Amino acid sequence: MRSFVINKPDEVICSLLQDKIDNLAKPKGSLGLLEKIAKQVGTIQQSLSPQLTNPHHILFAADHGIAESGVSPSPKSITWQQALNFVEGGGGINIFVRQNGFKLLVVDAGVDYDFEADTGIIDRKISKGTANFLYEAAMTEQQMEQAINTGVELVEQCQQAGCNIISFGELGIANTSPSSIWMSYLTGIDLKQCVGAGSGWASEGTLRKYQVLQQAVDNYQGDSSALDIMRYFGGYEMVMTVGAMLRAAELAMIILVDGFIMTNCILMAAKFYPNIINYAIFGHQGEETGHKLLLDYMGVQSLLQLQFRLGEGTGAVCAFPLVDSAVRMMNEMKSFAKAEVTPITKC
Amino acid sequence: MRSFVINKPDEVICSLLQDKIDNLAKPKGSLGLLEKIAKQVGTIQQSLSPQLTNPHHILFAADHGIAESGVSPSPKSITWQQALNFVEGGGGINIFVRQNGFKLLVVDAGVDYDFEADTGIIDRKISKGTANFLYEAAMTEQQMEQAINTGVELVEQCQQAGCNIISFGELGIANTSPSSIWMSYLTGIDLKQCVGAGSGWASEGTLRKYQVLQQAVDNYQGDSSALDIMRYFGGYEMVMTVGAMLRAAELAMIILVDGFIMTNCILMAAKFYPNIINYAIFGHQGEETGHKLLLDYMGVQSLLQLQFRLGEGTGAVCAFPLVDSAVRMMNEMKSFAKAEVTPITKC
Repeated sequence: MRSFVINKPDEVICSLLQDKIDNLAKPKGSLGLLEKIAKQVGTIQQSLSPQLTNPHHILFAADHGIAESGVSPSPKSITWQQALNFVEGGGGINIFVRQNGFKLLVVDAGVDYDFEADTGIIDRKISKGTANFLYEAAMTEQQMEQAINTGVELVEQCQQAGCNIISFGELGIANTSPSSIWMSYLTGIDLKQCVGAGSGWASEGTLRKYQVLQQAVDNYQGDSSALDIMRYFGGYEMVMTVGAMLRAAELAMIILVDGFIMTNCILMAAKFYPNIINYAIFGHQGEETGHKLLLDYMGVQSLLQLQFRLGEGTGAVCAFPLVDSAVRMMNEMKSFAKAEVTPITKC
Repeated sequence: MRSFVINKPDEVICSLLQDKIDNLAKPKGSLGLLEKIAKQVGTIQQSLSPQLTNPHHILFAADHGIAESGVSPSPKSITWQQALNFVEGGGGINIFVRQNGFKLLVVDAGVDYDFEADTGIIDRKISKGTANFLYEAAMTEQQMEQAINTGVELVEQCQQAGCNIISFGELGIANTSPSSIWMSYLTGIDLKQCVGAGSGWASEGTLRKYQVLQQAVDNYQGDSSALDIMRYFGGYEMVMTVGAMLRAAELAMIILVDGFIMTNCILMAAKFYPNIINYAIFGHQGEETGHKLLLDYMGVQSLLQLQFRLGEGTGAVCAFPLVDSAVRMMNEMKSFAKAEVTPITKC
């Protein structure tokens, strides 16, 4: 994999940010998590008056060989059908990007379908879906490199369009399966605890899914390095996201992280470059079994807990108004002195 | 108190709303709490395509006689200082109302200060703060009626301006104290569990606050009816809110409920007219001790948990984008059929 330079933001500014926040006309700490976000964004941007500009959402779509092994209740054709629905504006993610002023990029990372040329879907197809990791590596090293580099390239496009806050989403029937395996390898948590209902299994289906994935893990003969796990079990949309997240952090952009799958992607990225976590805001804790375990493992907390289990990046984009609120707090709220309000003393 | 006619919204439409939601191109239930909100709003408005129009936020400010008894670490002058800050746009609530397109009304319900005429504060001062309920009733029956009727009048103004979703906030040093007493009487929960840090007590201060409030309760010799508790211990801003909430429900408006104090107000209103709860969306679970207990007692769940303890209605207005998302879901998201996506079958 190509290398990245991801610096930890200089924390000298933190005490200045804290002073500014503590002098706003309100009891200390009374805006809770918004104050935490304001400090993080101010630190990333090295500014006491941070700004959010031209938010973009990249939605990577791909198919998965493992879908052939019955790990999802949904037919694989939903991947291409929904990709078309998204470029036509009718999906769940479309509501939220429109509402919050995001530009949406729908990317064919490796969908098993021939789209027509003029759909609006950005063609970065690596192949028509990964190989089935129950029997063989999902992708070759060359395909993995291509996925990483494509993520990099697309984030650069966004940044050149003036974007400094970016979120990512995924579309791909069966993609909670590779995510569960990534999670288990990366965290050391037993696979069974990492496997959930995905888009809609009842408990029996979830058990069958777990058994297939356990078999895949049993069959695996690689070196268990993060790089090999990423390649062997990954989806193209997931590996593209890893590359995209790494480049976004390298460019000091704010990364809004969605649910189970996207959290696994940033955890994977963090195995290579731990400093990436400083650029991440976790938008939503989803319903997928394992997501709370994963956030706890990473020691992070999401802004929202709305019981979503949709994917697409919906939870990340829904959290945007709160990040916006935090930034507005820094720029629009008056200090005790300017507001002519008596500072509240400690007691 | 004047009477209200608050009907339970006709629930015949619920199954139609559920059908519409279930046919949107996503796994069933995968938008979690947004689906619940969409159903509630659709039921209130008796519409499969609900709309949010001209949101208003009324912020009632008043002083409290009990502040003289050392229940708050903050000086009483903060009430009038912050009221001026709010009409000048520099407060916490101002950020959120601007961000979310709310019209803000700052109302002097009974602040202990002579505002100049042209500040922008709406003058509905009942008196310069309530009496100290440690020794006597906070307000007379006539003052209570006036507060209720003022709340009614102001909500009618909002509705006439085309508003169908309204939130309320409060400003008044010491107002967690009357709220804690209301909560204890209305829920039967021991007063000690209802008393918290307010705007910033450490544990010793919270204990002193509890002792003062327990003394007030011991001194009270009324009939313990909700009406008498409202009058004897209430603040003007709280009683105005009760009147405002009741009229809003009567007019079938959506009521966005903020934290500890506002939740006590809607609980008070519900003691008179239980159907009001059908019109309430709980925006934020705050940090004040007792708020979670109170929400649990009412069997409701807030959309946000951001560790706010600011008041002003900030948590309610911050939750608005999520209500907006729910309504947009109903109007903008395509059905499986229209999106040409294969419906996901149960499994």
